Amino acid sequence: MSSGIDIKLRIPYRGVYALGPGKADLLEAIITTGSISAAAKSMGMSYKRAWDLVNTMNTSFKQSLVTTATGGSHGGGAAVTDFGKKVLTHYRHIQQLANEATHQEAEALCDLLR
Amino acid sequence: MSSGIDIKLRIPYRGVYALGPGKADLLEAIITTGSISAAAKSMGMSYKRAWDLVNTMNTSFKQSLVTTATGGSHGGGAAVTDFGKKVLTHYRHIQQLANEATHQEAEALCDLLR
Repeated sequence: MSSGIDIKLRIPYRGVYALGPGKADLLEAIITTGSISAAAKSMGMSYKRAWDLVNTMNTSFKQSLVTTATGGSHGGGAAVTDFGKKVLTHYRHIQQLANEATHQEAEALCDLLR
Repeated sequence: MSSGIDIKLRIPYRGVYALGPGKADLLEAIITTGSISAAAKSMGMSYKRAWDLVNTMNTSFKQSLVTTATGGSHGGGAAVTDFGKKVLTHYRHIQQLANEATHQEAEALCDLLR
């Protein structure tokens, strides 16, 4: 969002997106809250949708990004794996590279706005 | 789309997007076809939607990106102005900068996919 331009990175994989802005934010929310249901709630997202996003990530990458503990209703908590944290850090780094590379030119383009 | 990552650039402006992938493609289609209706058709978009996108661009930037000739039903043709071509070139250049800056790291991230 720096310099007024909105850059969204997505990784298409077999007809879906393995990773994108929403999934990255969800990973961060799971790290913060320690559960998929609490993460979903914090993002105003249904539990089912959050689980679907987690499932897409887990089945798209070579290893799971999120593990869930077995437990009662809506599970016994969830954790982002080391692999998931590595993927998230990598994704954020790519976002930063894109922001930095385009910052100056994006500002010049935004100067053409009213 | 190089290196398997999908990068979408949008310029938010007063609650809408002044420019983004669809509007940039529409500008190119207007250059190619010489009319908004033909451009809309080539993109599988309604004439109304195409006109709305043109209107958003024209009112967001300091000058018009598209001019329309007066004429019969659906107008007498449209042209992308020099200013519009400049904005389009600028936008495509920023896209290229983002692609180039992220290419290597994006490939490394995509290597983690199944």
